[in-house]
Amino acid sequence: MRRLVVVGGVAGGASAAAKAKRTDPGLEVVVYEKSGYVSYGACGLPYFLSGEIPRLEALVARTPEEFRKQGVEVHTRHEVVDVNYEDRVLTVFDHENRRTFQDRFDLLVLATGARPLVPSLPGTEQEGIYTLRSMEDGARIKEALEGARRTAILGAGYIGLEVAEAFRKLGKEVTLLEAKDRPLPQADPEVSALVKQELEAHGVEVWTGVRATALRGAGRVEGVETDAGFVPADLVLLAVGIRPNTALAQAMGVALGPTGAIATDERMRTNLEGVFAAGDVAESRHLVLERPYWLPLGDVANKHGRTAGSVIGKEEARFRGVVGTAIFKAFGLAVATTGLSLEAALKEGFRAKAVQIQSRDGAHYYPGTHPLHVRLVYEEGTGRLLGGAVVGHMNAALRIKVLAALLHQKGTVEDLLALDLAYAPPFSPVWDPLLVAAQQVK
Amino acid sequence: MRRLVVVGGVAGGASAAAKAKRTDPGLEVVVYEKSGYVSYGACGLPYFLSGEIPRLEALVARTPEEFRKQGVEVHTRHEVVDVNYEDRVLTVFDHENRRTFQDRFDLLVLATGARPLVPSLPGTEQEGIYTLRSMEDGARIKEALEGARRTAILGAGYIGLEVAEAFRKLGKEVTLLEAKDRPLPQADPEVSALVKQELEAHGVEVWTGVRATALRGAGRVEGVETDAGFVPADLVLLAVGIRPNTALAQAMGVALGPTGAIATDERMRTNLEGVFAAGDVAESRHLVLERPYWLPLGDVANKHGRTAGSVIGKEEARFRGVVGTAIFKAFGLAVATTGLSLEAALKEGFRAKAVQIQSRDGAHYYPGTHPLHVRLVYEEGTGRLLGGAVVGHMNAALRIKVLAALLHQKGTVEDLLALDLAYAPPFSPVWDPLLVAAQQVK
Repeated sequence: MRRLVVVGGVAGGASAAAKAKRTDPGLEVVVYEKSGYVSYGACGLPYFLSGEIPRLEALVARTPEEFRKQGVEVHTRHEVVDVNYEDRVLTVFDHENRRTFQDRFDLLVLATGARPLVPSLPGTEQEGIYTLRSMEDGARIKEALEGARRTAILGAGYIGLEVAEAFRKLGKEVTLLEAKDRPLPQADPEVSALVKQELEAHGVEVWTGVRATALRGAGRVEGVETDAGFVPADLVLLAVGIRPNTALAQAMGVALGPTGAIATDERMRTNLEGVFAAGDVAESRHLVLERPYWLPLGDVANKHGRTAGSVIGKEEARFRGVVGTAIFKAFGLAVATTGLSLEAALKEGFRAKAVQIQSRDGAHYYPGTHPLHVRLVYEEGTGRLLGGAVVGHMNAALRIKVLAALLHQKGTVEDLLALDLAYAPPFSPVWDPLLVAAQQVK
Repeated sequence: MRRLVVVGGVAGGASAAAKAKRTDPGLEVVVYEKSGYVSYGACGLPYFLSGEIPRLEALVARTPEEFRKQGVEVHTRHEVVDVNYEDRVLTVFDHENRRTFQDRFDLLVLATGARPLVPSLPGTEQEGIYTLRSMEDGARIKEALEGARRTAILGAGYIGLEVAEAFRKLGKEVTLLEAKDRPLPQADPEVSALVKQELEAHGVEVWTGVRATALRGAGRVEGVETDAGFVPADLVLLAVGIRPNTALAQAMGVALGPTGAIATDERMRTNLEGVFAAGDVAESRHLVLERPYWLPLGDVANKHGRTAGSVIGKEEARFRGVVGTAIFKAFGLAVATTGLSLEAALKEGFRAKAVQIQSRDGAHYYPGTHPLHVRLVYEEGTGRLLGGAVVGHMNAALRIKVLAALLHQKGTVEDLLALDLAYAPPFSPVWDPLLVAAQQVK
């Protein structure tokens, strides 16, 4: 019997294990996960913090018991600490019983995920300082929130912004500290400006272009020292980025790609026969840049895992890649981006330009509509679409998916303008905002 | 000075006039519109009836005065009754002053729109029986609603369904009568079933497979006789379909296409040099069927008009065609369709199949999400996407735009499955419902 071992069971790993077993029921499938949970929606943690999701366990898609019923053996609190690829043997540390044992495999999926960066500042080891990545992190912060009144968040990326909202919903004071000159610095300044406005309208204090220099406190954090002054805080969240957990892969001889994550082909195979990678530890191909790209997001991880599982089960499957689509909610604002920002496109050497328009998400006369902003980044001359952003009220921003589809097809602004996009007064102005933006391109 | 006359000023005509003048300010532009209004959103009339839009005039995008300021001469209540193409002369009847006069043109846009069908039943000439097409229709029905308690709507297409909602919002009894076996008969039965459920949940009585045989009353309507019984009603809306207003075009020698609407090329030119057509009176090309198709919708009309205006102003512009995308709201449900239904695809000779799934419009653990249904119609063997439907809560159904974009590109289910569509818990399950549907295709 072929034995598949999956290292890491959150998103990529859980998907790979489930799909492999479904595709090839004759396969022995074992998952080792070092945390206490498998198959959970880490993206939901900010909504657990805010109280919108009352029970942490609600984030779990499939419990170890459910996996077992499907014939997948799951071991939580089990950390794979070494892999001997030659002999197809791995060493596992059981955190529960504090013992080490060995297991064998024929096939291996590395789904070891990513870890939050901790900035090298004095004072980060104190109490009251957190990162948010695992279910355990979520539980810890939730508990700590009870005693906290003033909070500081380092880093204004997705996690920082989502947690800022959660903390405000709980009535906490929130200061958001970002080293770059704007929140959501991966987006263009015109998009960040909309985000900043929304944050400030909801009482988040936004400090940009600010470097933290130390976390002050005497064992328990009291605030953040920055080059722009001191921010008092009872609770500090570090959300300055993540890195792929590649140590195990590197130690066993699995090659990393140019991004620093594990290199894979379209079937999620690594350089070692029988070894796959999936999820935040693995690269994807960027279909606009046409080169490897690291996009550590939940939907991508699931696609990686499903592809790896299918291939392991000997079903034809490929993961073509990503165009870099993301969406998140900042209070009442949905912020969706795809492809390249203008800044990124120019840095990549494209002769790129951008247009950005403000329209509405319903007919001019329809009650209760909201502003909707569309940004297009395109190549001068060819009109090829390179990226875009849609910012507005909740699901109106789902229009980003249209831009994503066009990026997959290497479509042009002209192609966008030709689209038959559906109109009715509650859903759109008669000219869809995407088309209004496309019309601005000369 | 070249003189452009636009016949009809609602959507296609208003767009053509405005765009032509903007593109070539040296052009003389005159619009004749037989009703009392130009440039209005007829699609908003149901929301005027419901009271959600309090003032009828709110539907107007651009008043005659605003047109005049832009150098476009607009005459409402002026009906073009004859065109002498040879001499480039037209005859106009001024309804206000009840006089006839002549005008000349170098260029002509026919934007005469469409008219509601009145079924040939005994009793349709009575009071209390309406069609909904113009602003004047809207005003008349609104007034009549004050005395009405029981209403009947003949025809369960978009208009019938939207008005059913409006009448229910006003607390009227509503019986919806449809000759075919389901509401929204242009969609597949599985989509109609969702619509029917929503209608009934909101107190609309839905009679399907029912033929009206007469409108009973003694000068004022009292109800609808049908082959399934009598439906008492103080107010009856006839919403059984529309036909293009082609009489003027035919009389002057403009060729109609196979659909019965005016045939045009990608530049909205008719068979007569200098004569263009735009809006509900004109055909479009259907990019899935690859033949002319009549899609009398507001957004299409605006695209027609803009294209005609650009071409007249000597700017490069083409209208490539439609894929048949539409969206409408039935109470809490947004119903969006694109391309071919399974029924239509099979009738067209495609080896078509369909899948339909139910998912949700947010992560399983996120509060306040709603069911979301996705239907895909595709060609067996090639996997080519032929059509689809998305039915769910409001803007979640905007995902239809992705399917529309794929239809424009002649994409496959495989292409759909490959899309990087953006995920965050408030917006989508980790597998977007579009992808869940694509996964069901074997």
